Amino acid sequence: MKKINLKEKLSQFSDHWVPRVIAEMNDYQFKLVKIKDEFVWHQHSDTDEVFIVLEGNMSIEFEDETIELSEGEMLVVKKGDKHKPFANKECMVMLVEPKAVVNTGDAPSRLTASNDVWI
Amino acid sequence: MKKINLKEKLSQFSDHWVPRVIAEMNDYQFKLVKIKDEFVWHQHSDTDEVFIVLEGNMSIEFEDETIELSEGEMLVVKKGDKHKPFANKECMVMLVEPKAVVNTGDAPSRLTASNDVWI
Repeated sequence: MKKINLKEKLSQFSDHWVPRVIAEMNDYQFKLVKIKDEFVWHQHSDTDEVFIVLEGNMSIEFEDETIELSEGEMLVVKKGDKHKPFANKECMVMLVEPKAVVNTGDAPSRLTASNDVWI
Repeated sequence: MKKINLKEKLSQFSDHWVPRVIAEMNDYQFKLVKIKDEFVWHQHSDTDEVFIVLEGNMSIEFEDETIELSEGEMLVVKKGDKHKPFANKECMVMLVEPKAVVNTGDAPSRLTASNDVWI
């Protein structure tokens, strides 16, 4: 059993939109991701997804609204909700979702990252 | 869809060892709890449980070791692992676990809190 220090884990990578797994709870994973600029419109048709902002600011665009998130704020994106994350400046985010979830959901693109990459 | 501000939610209660639900993702819940002094030895025989320290310091005693956690650190307590959380001074914690989990697990006591209480 080993504790996980979020800042120490964040120091281990610098690329954007490539989630790293830091912990597993039952069949769910906690992932860290650094984001900047636009992601792609996508949805996860089988699962909700949680965003928790650790540092910086981001927004998540939905079909009918845009939600701004700052450090210490979180959002549950409900399954099937089309969304597009965005960050003007680099932002550090923790994601919580089931193990098998791929970052671009139903919309494979050049931003699709390998899944289940641990740090 | 509504974002959740952790500090604002923490300002809504002051008692210790009484988790409040702030979000639901599929059949999992995110809970905030303020802790101070000793909890009870217990285990959750069906599920892992995640502790994320938001403010302050806490420790979790296990049968063979004690793990200290500070702000920005997290720990996955594996299912069936007997543990006893403790905080010398008040500490703010986020818990992530399945919906039906009761705080004292297999060890009902005066510290057993109502489940599924939302703020």
